[in-house]
Parts: sequence; structure tokens; C-alpha cells
Amino acid sequence: MKQLLAVDWGTSSLRGALLDSQGRVLKERSFARGILSVAPGNFASVFDDCFGHWMAPAGTFCLISGMAGSKQGWLEAHYCACPAGFDEVASQLAWVKAGRIAIVPGLSCEHEGIPDVMRGEETQVFGALQLLGLQDGLLVLPGTHSKWVHVRGGRIDNFSTSMTGEFYALLRQQSLLARSLPEADGEVDWAAFDEGVALALRGSSLLQTAFSVRTLSLFGRMAASRLPSYLSGLVIGEEIRTQPLDTGAQVVVVGSELLTERYQRALAQRRTSVQAVGAEASWRGLWALAQTIHPSWDKQA
Amino acid sequence: MKQLLAVDWGTSSLRGALLDSQGRVLKERSFARGILSVAPGNFASVFDDCFGHWMAPAGTFCLISGMAGSKQGWLEAHYCACPAGFDEVASQLAWVKAGRIAIVPGLSCEHEGIPDVMRGEETQVFGALQLLGLQDGLLVLPGTHSKWVHVRGGRIDNFSTSMTGEFYALLRQQSLLARSLPEADGEVDWAAFDEGVALALRGSSLLQTAFSVRTLSLFGRMAASRLPSYLSGLVIGEEIRTQPLDTGAQVVVVGSELLTERYQRALAQRRTSVQAVGAEASWRGLWALAQTIHPSWDKQA
Repeated sequence: MKQLLAVDWGTSSLRGALLDSQGRVLKERSFARGILSVAPGNFASVFDDCFGHWMAPAGTFCLISGMAGSKQGWLEAHYCACPAGFDEVASQLAWVKAGRIAIVPGLSCEHEGIPDVMRGEETQVFGALQLLGLQDGLLVLPGTHSKWVHVRGGRIDNFSTSMTGEFYALLRQQSLLARSLPEADGEVDWAAFDEGVALALRGSSLLQTAFSVRTLSLFGRMAASRLPSYLSGLVIGEEIRTQPLDTGAQVVVVGSELLTERYQRALAQRRTSVQAVGAEASWRGLWALAQTIHPSWDKQA
Repeated sequence: MKQLLAVDWGTSSLRGALLDSQGRVLKERSFARGILSVAPGNFASVFDDCFGHWMAPAGTFCLISGMAGSKQGWLEAHYCACPAGFDEVASQLAWVKAGRIAIVPGLSCEHEGIPDVMRGEETQVFGALQLLGLQDGLLVLPGTHSKWVHVRGGRIDNFSTSMTGEFYALLRQQSLLARSLPEADGEVDWAAFDEGVALALRGSSLLQTAFSVRTLSLFGRMAASRLPSYLSGLVIGEEIRTQPLDTGAQVVVVGSELLTERYQRALAQRRTSVQAVGAEASWRGLWALAQTIHPSWDKQA
């Protein structure tokens, strides 16, 4: 029986799932072996250590998405220029081992002369579209670098990146604001989060709104324990402020439950409703791509 | 003869100047003894070490502005609520030593329920107004936390803070973008700086525009040596994008020559002309305040 080893190999983590020919997840594993932790030339042995036993049965095909396809990764894969769909992506795989292990290319697009890129999110988008039965829509993939993705006719038309998660981490841990904040984040304080979102939506730049973390603290207007949630609302609200959303628009949020909840809540302030898709989007996307490149896969069956 | 010891005691540095009764600078010194480097209770002895000999002559009065008046400083001084001018500030000095050493209060204002604060910049503003003979205007004081200050009838009407310098430092040194950048900044590349400003002015958030540092580098569209200037343009451009400036407006920039030049260049893209004032604004502001509180000063003469 044919199997797919679906792998999401990112900057800071390595996750894999074994799927049967129907796309059902048989088992999953994850390792703290993101590409930054792997020395050049060591990718094959790290892969074997982690997934060698899953690759042993004949007819097992492995498809990898994420930063493993970057210049600092295992093998450089192209960026497909948008608009791009399954077919473009499937036809530009980087083959680590002919017919056995391939890396999914990333996507690029351009806005007024400035390029934008993604690696891994394209696969999550394809998976989410499959799971929801959609051919068109606006998706957001929150994270260190959030992606807002416009899909038309099943193909990714264009997208943009916001460095939201990274700005949060910098402000939370490295900035002067960090002195006003408690060491640990604690539970999300939703009222404080909402206040942050509201200020960001009526503001014009995080450069200004972020300073309110200091002044609200200075004048005792917000307790320190509430400030991390407030700051999170400021940063996510800033990301959402800049998106062209019509009233009543619908957005698909692809991500972990915690992030999805924050985006759902923030988007509600712009009267935007949300459909949520979890981490299963990656597995479904890789499985869908494996179907598209069926011939290569079949030879090993 | 009466003398004024004018001191600007900030977060990371301590600067002082001895002025004669006409406001002329007789001598200047600066020390790496910002308030963060001084343990609580040690402010008096650090001050004596640095300026004790300048204070020795009878009739020498010392006026201090900056973070020395904060909760973490020598002695906490008020925040005067805007609108506030010379008189309000002069009447709320925090006296370290009656008639001899005083700390200038900061200012506060409020926008839609969010407070804003400054400490030290109010003195630079008063000094710049005196030097230029102005009673009204818009001033910007670039820095770690830039201040945009509206002055009417010689009083500070309101102001806003942008965390521009701090965001630049975080992105330059701590973010993933830092990997695309050379270790040292080198000379300013004005063309790259202008490109950054232009993108920021037509963009809607630094969260998005900052990612272009990575993609322009990734596709070889901008040499690494030019990227620090480009990033500086992005961040300063973001600050300027959010300011309500009419075409043909005039802005007074108070700061070091290097920063003044960058702001002048960036503001030109918004057809705004600039008058520049240097570090002498602090000394002039402290001297002007000392004039206002003349009675106290006179007693020591």
C-alpha cells in the first residue's frame, strides 16, 4: 500500500506525518530540528535519523514543504511566480531523490516593484482550500511572518507579508517596553487584547501606538499583568488595519487554535467573519500535491 | 558673577554646560553616566564627581532636564499637563537643593484617552523657540523615541511619540532582517535611504514594508551595504507618513546633524521644508527657564 510521508521543515521545527492513500494521518512526529539547527551537508542524515524507518517500506513517497527548500536548507527549490496553483507548484518540485523525496517550491509575487515570498504557507493554503471545498477567498496564516493570501479559481493570485509575530517578540522581549511587562505572558486577557486592537485600528502606525504600553503603565491605567495581551492586540490590530476588508467579508484563518482565536476576535472589530483551519492544512496540502504528481509517486507503488 | 550649570541627564548619558549670565556656553562636558548606570541613592555623588568643581563658586545655579526627573532618576519631578509653557514648567521644578539645584518637570498630554509623555524634550523645544524667535510651529525631536510637538503662542499645545529610533535598533540588530545586513552601517547611502522613505510613504505599515529588506536582498535587487540606509529610510518614512503635514508646511527639526539631515531629506518627499537646530537647544532652553525663575537664582548671586 502506498504511503505519503508529509514533512513541514521550517526554520525552527521539523514535523512529519505518515498518511495513507486516502490522506488519513496514521502517525505524527515533531522534532526541534529546524533548518537553523542543521549544518550544511547534514540534512540527509538528520532526515534519516528522524524519518528513516517511516521511509523504509517500498512505495513510500516523501514530500517536504517549508524552509528546507531555501538557500540555507536541504536543496534549493524555486519560487513560483504568482498567480500559481497546484499545477505550477507540482511541476517545479526540487527532487532530493528521484521519485522518492521532493521539496515543494515556494511562491513569489510583486507589488509595485517590491518582491514578496513564502515557503510552506502555499501548501497550507492548498490544504485549507481542499478541506473547506473553496476555490476563491482571502486567507491569513498568522505567525512570525503572517501571510495574507488572495485565491482565485483555486490559484494563489497574490499575497503580502506582515512581520507581526516577530515585531511582537522584539517589543515583548527586547524593547524598553519590556521593562513595564511581567516576565511571563500568563492567560490571555481578552478585554486588554480588544483595547489594543481598537487603538491599532483607529491609529496610523505601531511606531506610535506601541508607546501606549509604557504610558498606560506609567500612569497606572493598566495593570502590568494585562499589558502583554494589550501589546498582542496592538500588533495584530496593526496587521489587520492595513488589510483591504469590505464590511461582511469572510477570512479563512489557518493556524494554531490560540492564534486563530486572537485573529477571530480582532477581525470581529472590522465586522469580518472567520473560518478556522488548524495544522491539518499542511498534511492535506502535501497530500493533495502528491495526488497531482501521481505518476512519479505511482512508479514506486 | 552668576553662572548657570545646565545639565541634560538622560537615560544613557549625562551632559553639562556652564553658561554665563548672557547664556553663552563657557565649557561643556559629557559622561557615560545615564540614569540607568546610577544606583538608587547614588545620584548626588555622581553629580558631585562630574560637576562638583563647577558648582563650587557662590551664585552658581544648576538646572537639570531629562530622565533624572523620572521615578528611576534623582528626584521625581511632575509631568505638567499640556498646554504648558515656560511659566507652568518653571513653577513645578523639583528642588534637589533649595535655590541651588532643580530638576525641570516633564510634560504630559492625552489623545483619545491614551496619555503621552516627554522628559527633556520640552526644554529643547523652549530653547529652539528662543533661538529661532518663534511663538508657533511644529517641531520634531528625532531620537530613540521621537517627539512631534505643536506649539501655539509660545506654549506646547500637544505632542506625540514615535518609537522610531528604538524600532530601527531592534530591526537592525535583533530581527531576522539583521542576517541580510552588514555588521557596520558605513556611510549613509542617500539613494537607498530615499527609496526606503518613498516605500514607507506609499505603504500603510512598517509591519509590511520592513519585509522588503529581506526580499530585496534575497533577489539581489539591493546590495547588502545599502540596506542599513534603506531600513533607516523605511523607519523614518513611517514616522513621517503618519504626521498631518500640509503641502508647503515648515517643520523645525531639533537634533544632531546626522539625524537632522535624514529628516530634512525625508520631509522633502512630503514637500515640507525644514529649519534645523542643534544640541544648543537644550542649553538655551535651560538658560531661558533659569531666567524665568530668576528670583530664586538671584538670591544666590
